[in-house]
Amino acid sequence: MSEQDMLFDESGNLSQSAPTNASNEAPSKWKILIVDDEEGVHTITKLALNRTQFAGKGLSFLSAYNVAQAKKILSSENDIAVILLDVVMETEEAGLEVAEYIRDVLNNHLIRIILRTGQPGTIPEKDIIEQYDINDYREKTELTKRKLHSTVYTALRSYRDMLALENHKIGLEKVIAATANILKQKSMASFAQGVLEQVSSLLYMNDGTMQPEIKGVLAEKDSDDVHVLAQVGDVSAQAFQSSISQEELDVIEDSDQALHYQEDNICHISKMNGVETILNITGKHEFKDVDVHLIEMFCNNMAIALDNLRLNDSLRNTQKEIVYAICGLAESRSKETGNHVRRVAYYSRLMAEEIGLSPNQCEELFYAAPLHDIGKISVPDYILNKPDRLNDEEWELMKKHTTVGENCLKCSHQPVMQAGAIIASQHHENWNGHGYPQGLSGTDIHIYGRIVALADVFDALASKRCYKEPWGEEEIVAYIHKQSGVKFDPQLVEIFERRQADFFRILQEYDDNQSYLSSV
Amino acid sequence: MSEQDMLFDESGNLSQSAPTNASNEAPSKWKILIVDDEEGVHTITKLALNRTQFAGKGLSFLSAYNVAQAKKILSSENDIAVILLDVVMETEEAGLEVAEYIRDVLNNHLIRIILRTGQPGTIPEKDIIEQYDINDYREKTELTKRKLHSTVYTALRSYRDMLALENHKIGLEKVIAATANILKQKSMASFAQGVLEQVSSLLYMNDGTMQPEIKGVLAEKDSDDVHVLAQVGDVSAQAFQSSISQEELDVIEDSDQALHYQEDNICHISKMNGVETILNITGKHEFKDVDVHLIEMFCNNMAIALDNLRLNDSLRNTQKEIVYAICGLAESRSKETGNHVRRVAYYSRLMAEEIGLSPNQCEELFYAAPLHDIGKISVPDYILNKPDRLNDEEWELMKKHTTVGENCLKCSHQPVMQAGAIIASQHHENWNGHGYPQGLSGTDIHIYGRIVALADVFDALASKRCYKEPWGEEEIVAYIHKQSGVKFDPQLVEIFERRQADFFRILQEYDDNQSYLSSV
Repeated sequence: MSEQDMLFDESGNLSQSAPTNASNEAPSKWKILIVDDEEGVHTITKLALNRTQFAGKGLSFLSAYNVAQAKKILSSENDIAVILLDVVMETEEAGLEVAEYIRDVLNNHLIRIILRTGQPGTIPEKDIIEQYDINDYREKTELTKRKLHSTVYTALRSYRDMLALENHKIGLEKVIAATANILKQKSMASFAQGVLEQVSSLLYMNDGTMQPEIKGVLAEKDSDDVHVLAQVGDVSAQAFQSSISQEELDVIEDSDQALHYQEDNICHISKMNGVETILNITGKHEFKDVDVHLIEMFCNNMAIALDNLRLNDSLRNTQKEIVYAICGLAESRSKETGNHVRRVAYYSRLMAEEIGLSPNQCEELFYAAPLHDIGKISVPDYILNKPDRLNDEEWELMKKHTTVGENCLKCSHQPVMQAGAIIASQHHENWNGHGYPQGLSGTDIHIYGRIVALADVFDALASKRCYKEPWGEEEIVAYIHKQSGVKFDPQLVEIFERRQADFFRILQEYDDNQSYLSSV
Repeated sequence: MSEQDMLFDESGNLSQSAPTNASNEAPSKWKILIVDDEEGVHTITKLALNRTQFAGKGLSFLSAYNVAQAKKILSSENDIAVILLDVVMETEEAGLEVAEYIRDVLNNHLIRIILRTGQPGTIPEKDIIEQYDINDYREKTELTKRKLHSTVYTALRSYRDMLALENHKIGLEKVIAATANILKQKSMASFAQGVLEQVSSLLYMNDGTMQPEIKGVLAEKDSDDVHVLAQVGDVSAQAFQSSISQEELDVIEDSDQALHYQEDNICHISKMNGVETILNITGKHEFKDVDVHLIEMFCNNMAIALDNLRLNDSLRNTQKEIVYAICGLAESRSKETGNHVRRVAYYSRLMAEEIGLSPNQCEELFYAAPLHDIGKISVPDYILNKPDRLNDEEWELMKKHTTVGENCLKCSHQPVMQAGAIIASQHHENWNGHGYPQGLSGTDIHIYGRIVALADVFDALASKRCYKEPWGEEEIVAYIHKQSGVKFDPQLVEIFERRQADFFRILQEYDDNQSYLSSV
């Protein structure tokens, strides 16, 4: 009873829970569960299979003597390869109950079930074979040492093949989930980071090694410049750049994609629209064919998704730059510089983030804010450039730039244009209701209008205009403070005062002596 | 010898090639290949297994009597489930040669190999089991009718399970390839069509039925309107719209995605950023759990990809509308209407397509052409609106709008802006070299510049301006014809003359009495 004592205490409970291997990977030995109520059968089985080896690994044995023990072991060990299962134990059909439990309750379809019977039971063999999802049915008498070896050996072979298919299936499902995951990333930085994380998890899903052991770099190569998008693990971008040989880069000249691997290094290179993307993974991991296959499929989807993301980035940048360029040109009629509209975009986004608008709204405002003065295109030159005070008639014409801008933008259904229409219309409204064109007050003024109003005035005060020199920092701060609750939303004035340093940083960063597109 | 005669002629060749089932799906009967040099074994095996049924299907038998025949059948029939394989035939190891051929040459790892031996061969059982990838090893004497049934039955069970895993694996690989396929689609129309095609091929990959039997609709629902994006098969969009119950649409209020299926109908609904996407598939096909699983994974990726595509569309439209709106406003200073820039975009794309520019270039030109007169923003009002002839000084200022526009746009690296800079700079150059600002001639003028030059003049002639009434159709055509090789590229004048009707259609479609954003 020594084997039994090792696993069970007197009450028949497991005396210590066996270490479970949560992964689907085969353990270092093939686990065989022997279920029989006769101790002799356990002993002789282990003796017979003592020296059996399959695929370079030996066997380890677990023993159960009744249904309850068998169920307990089966539910805590999910990597048993083969069960040698006695039919008649405490009941005539005890073994069949265990077989049903494995398939129907545990939903384990991998473990190979070899039914062994000492005496013909009440159910004929044909019925057992057909009604229970078992893999072999043998009489104990026919199982000589030689036959037992053959039976267990072929069962292990089946188990290994099914496990490989199952693992491959899991890998493919992970590729699909990983693709969905990276497709959701809208920025290049989060996309690149997502790709490396997904690759790591693809590679290490069945492996006991720690994920941090992976080192990965995702980079893009444009003309001659290699630019690292993201990296995982302790790898210097420089070392990576020099490790890519020219041959590796040349090999894809003829095809769109190429995957190289050797020992612990996988390199995938893809080329789309003139940009090469290089994914390099190294780690204390030997890359198997199945890994390479999964990585290849994933990288194929990644390359296409990345191309879409680049298109997206390019559309966004084009939109931004067109607005900066044209609005800058429009501002230049009144001798202002193009950087005014750009700075207003940055101050506005800063306030929007600080006041807690959603990321979507912050972005919308960022792209729409430069459109605030677009209506000035229709204001005559002589009014725009008059250094003296405007007379009443001129002032009425000047004020019309708000509604002209609104009408120009509001026909569109595009969110950025809608936001632009609101901003054009409301950026001269005052918190106290004394602004124009509508005389709206307080929160009747859209938050976009309130934000751009402060951003526009701050930048005007800090800049040189045809009718004034730039104000000093203290003067500006004092003026804005005084206008809290008058011209400006008090909450935004508070934000301005808290983030004052950032306002002046933006003012300097995009000052009027710089080309307004230089750092787009 | 009747069975043998049926399959083989006297020379031992297959007398008629058996119909192959190229798919991996199990056929209507399980195919069992008996390989044995004794006719009696064939007869008795078939007799013993005559009434064996597994998973509702009976068995069909193929017979081979030597290695050559076995190889021939195995290589033409890829859906044999089980082979009962004699070891000793024309040689001591003939059966082992067949086993090796199956695994190593045919690379068939699904077929279950049951080795049967009449006499102990020269190689011990242990070695055979370990060295050959077989699934069972039996002595003929031990295989009673009952035992043969058990052995074949459990082998069929293994085969079915592995086939299911293998088919699932193939399905998953198809999902990945299908995702890559739809990710490559850049337009909504080709994307939607691609989705339906990929779903059809996912559903029918293992099925003998014809793909045309599928009916599918991909639609989106925005607020209250259902809009069909693509459809496959004979299904009316109206019928589809009324077939979706409000309950189905309501069910996703709480979650992002939902999949319903019943008998021959699958409906997947996903919701992202306020737009519901509905994919409905019906067909003479009973949807199985595995189908549903694959469709669900595919639809998940599709929904995300569609969201990205919508974002791209929206960015593209925003860019176009901002340019129309602002350039329209700029044109309005000289009392022209916003629709001028819009029409110039359409004439230009028409000529670009006709002259054979790439789709990329056509699109680039379409988005950049409206920027041609952007430099006029800096031309003083009194010059723009002077009804009389400009004096030399005024004319020099007017001509500067080309280089001002170029300088405004050329700082950007974005392709659309680069194209805009070229167009702003060159749209007043003449084919004969007498244009401005540089006096370029012939093909030294960029094709974009040559195209927009003709488009701009055509539209100016056909429109009312502050200094002129619109010209009549004949006058316009005569003028452009006369300017071939003078102002305009002769090849473009030819295109104009060939597509004249389309030019006047565009002129009418976006005429000056329409809101310039009405049909964006």
